[in-house]
Amino acid sequence: MATGTLTIDLDAIRGNWRALAGMARAETAAVVKADAYGLGLGQVAPALAAEGARSFFVAVAEEGAELRQILGPGPAIHVFSGHMAGDTRLIAENGLVPMINSIDQMIRHVEALPGHPFGLQLDSGMNRLGMEPGEWSAVREIALTQAPVLAMSHLACADEPDHDMNARQLAAFAEMTAGLEIPRCLANTGGVLLGPDYHFEMTRPGIGLYGGLPYVDARPVVALDLPVIQCRNLAAGETVGYGCDFTADRPMRLATVSAGYADGVIRAMGPRTDLFAGETRCPMRGRISMDLIVADISALEEDPDSLELLGRHQSIDTLADNAGTIGYEILTALGDRYVRRYRGG
Amino acid sequence: MATGTLTIDLDAIRGNWRALAGMARAETAAVVKADAYGLGLGQVAPALAAEGARSFFVAVAEEGAELRQILGPGPAIHVFSGHMAGDTRLIAENGLVPMINSIDQMIRHVEALPGHPFGLQLDSGMNRLGMEPGEWSAVREIALTQAPVLAMSHLACADEPDHDMNARQLAAFAEMTAGLEIPRCLANTGGVLLGPDYHFEMTRPGIGLYGGLPYVDARPVVALDLPVIQCRNLAAGETVGYGCDFTADRPMRLATVSAGYADGVIRAMGPRTDLFAGETRCPMRGRISMDLIVADISALEEDPDSLELLGRHQSIDTLADNAGTIGYEILTALGDRYVRRYRGG
Repeated sequence: MATGTLTIDLDAIRGNWRALAGMARAETAAVVKADAYGLGLGQVAPALAAEGARSFFVAVAEEGAELRQILGPGPAIHVFSGHMAGDTRLIAENGLVPMINSIDQMIRHVEALPGHPFGLQLDSGMNRLGMEPGEWSAVREIALTQAPVLAMSHLACADEPDHDMNARQLAAFAEMTAGLEIPRCLANTGGVLLGPDYHFEMTRPGIGLYGGLPYVDARPVVALDLPVIQCRNLAAGETVGYGCDFTADRPMRLATVSAGYADGVIRAMGPRTDLFAGETRCPMRGRISMDLIVADISALEEDPDSLELLGRHQSIDTLADNAGTIGYEILTALGDRYVRRYRGG
Repeated sequence: MATGTLTIDLDAIRGNWRALAGMARAETAAVVKADAYGLGLGQVAPALAAEGARSFFVAVAEEGAELRQILGPGPAIHVFSGHMAGDTRLIAENGLVPMINSIDQMIRHVEALPGHPFGLQLDSGMNRLGMEPGEWSAVREIALTQAPVLAMSHLACADEPDHDMNARQLAAFAEMTAGLEIPRCLANTGGVLLGPDYHFEMTRPGIGLYGGLPYVDARPVVALDLPVIQCRNLAAGETVGYGCDFTADRPMRLATVSAGYADGVIRAMGPRTDLFAGETRCPMRGRISMDLIVADISALEEDPDSLELLGRHQSIDTLADNAGTIGYEILTALGDRYVRRYRGG
């Protein structure tokens, strides 16, 4: 078998949700968009529901429909992209709650599904999704005669507690939602950590559930082991991989493992990333290719059967640093060829 | 509907294969590993078979088994990772041809499946997969009494025609395979373009089939359209997206489209990449987020329903340049949330 093994710890996800829920008096929802950040909606969502989550957020109506099949009736499923043209049937049949982003979406929703619950997505300054203050003023009266069940906005800089954008968005959101008698939701994981002012009636952690920053105390969720295909000796002066990018300055022993950027091992992490055999670092040598990575196993006494990319010694955020990105992208890039093993649940 | 539409032109893939096949007198195989470079093994492989491809290459035995289900009996399916522990049943039941990489694999194969066809993967200098000259000498006599059907190696620098590594690998491969009476295969797409010396009895293009460099004359294969969720005005001084990275220096109009790095729009391409409305460039503003991208549509007279990321105006290699990677990774990163439409076939 030349496919890697991705182990996903559902108990850790449950523990992270419980810990984040314990930080707020508000209801704690769960963001499970993008296939639960790449970790498997079909396994992650039921685990979170079993832990007590009753409200979920997805990006698009298609994900909401899939989640409804997984969870059955009961839990609230909110759709960040709102009510798009062509979404009406998915929203109606699956009891989804579109987060209405614009006057156009409001009109579409109220005309197509009068009385069907919806949420209000308000822009408090990120300028990405949601109604601006002016738009919101224009439709507020009409909107409140319909069936809004939640008012939300999104923080642009919650990962940086000292950024003054946080307080500005908080003030804008408070002002836009003043007098509303429906639950309000502003805090992503970073927002939960910013403290009670940001919690309102509902929080909606995402990345923190999956073990990523900015939740530094998160339990790690993923481990990734890659099988070794073959080992070889390299003489000083020999080169490795595409473009002959790496030249050995001394004799070394190499292992070629079966995984590459087609599996989400982002190519840019190559020169700075290690694989691990137990406690021993095995630095990558040469470029990551589509299906293969070469690592320096000179420090090992025996040739390994597999090497670890993610686990106790290396987190998603370390890989993200190496690749010049964020832990979120490491997770969502994880490929389809891995055998996925779930622990707990 | 807030999911993007990925259009894959199977006729272009067939045309690229035919053109590459026309450059060599050798048999032309097709590399379809990693789900046909992310474009869909179930659609791409039958299209290539219909065009005349009789030999295919995949990375791992699991992919080979899937391909056999798709193609049925007949075509040769070669597995680059060879015969790994645990692969015997997949190889036997699906009539796969493992490309044996080491003496260990040779012993495993001959003991488990005596008489079952295999290929020889020889290392001509890339130091990634394949038997080194010394190893090969040691097993050559025994190997030739078994059932080798192909001898192959892989070029490290075929994308750079002037790199002296090409001639060195060619010489090493010719020397290692001298006197063999089985077909030899060295050339990937770049190798095909290097000319007849590199073609031997079989070539095996991959990226060129899918419209990527180094095959500059390839027909483009993919187009990607992303739906607009909402449009908004931005005042001078306002910021966009996570980290408030972009600040408007003048009033502008923005569109938020539904796609992000979870869909394989690699986060690193953000600051340098445009979306297109017809002929008009709409530069990305602010960071790419997991499910959303914001673009500047100030130059448009009307708000668009969708914007194009890949197509006539922007190729996989342009996106790759923007992201600091190669077109191959743009393809293999393409996400699962897109609606995939196939043309021709």
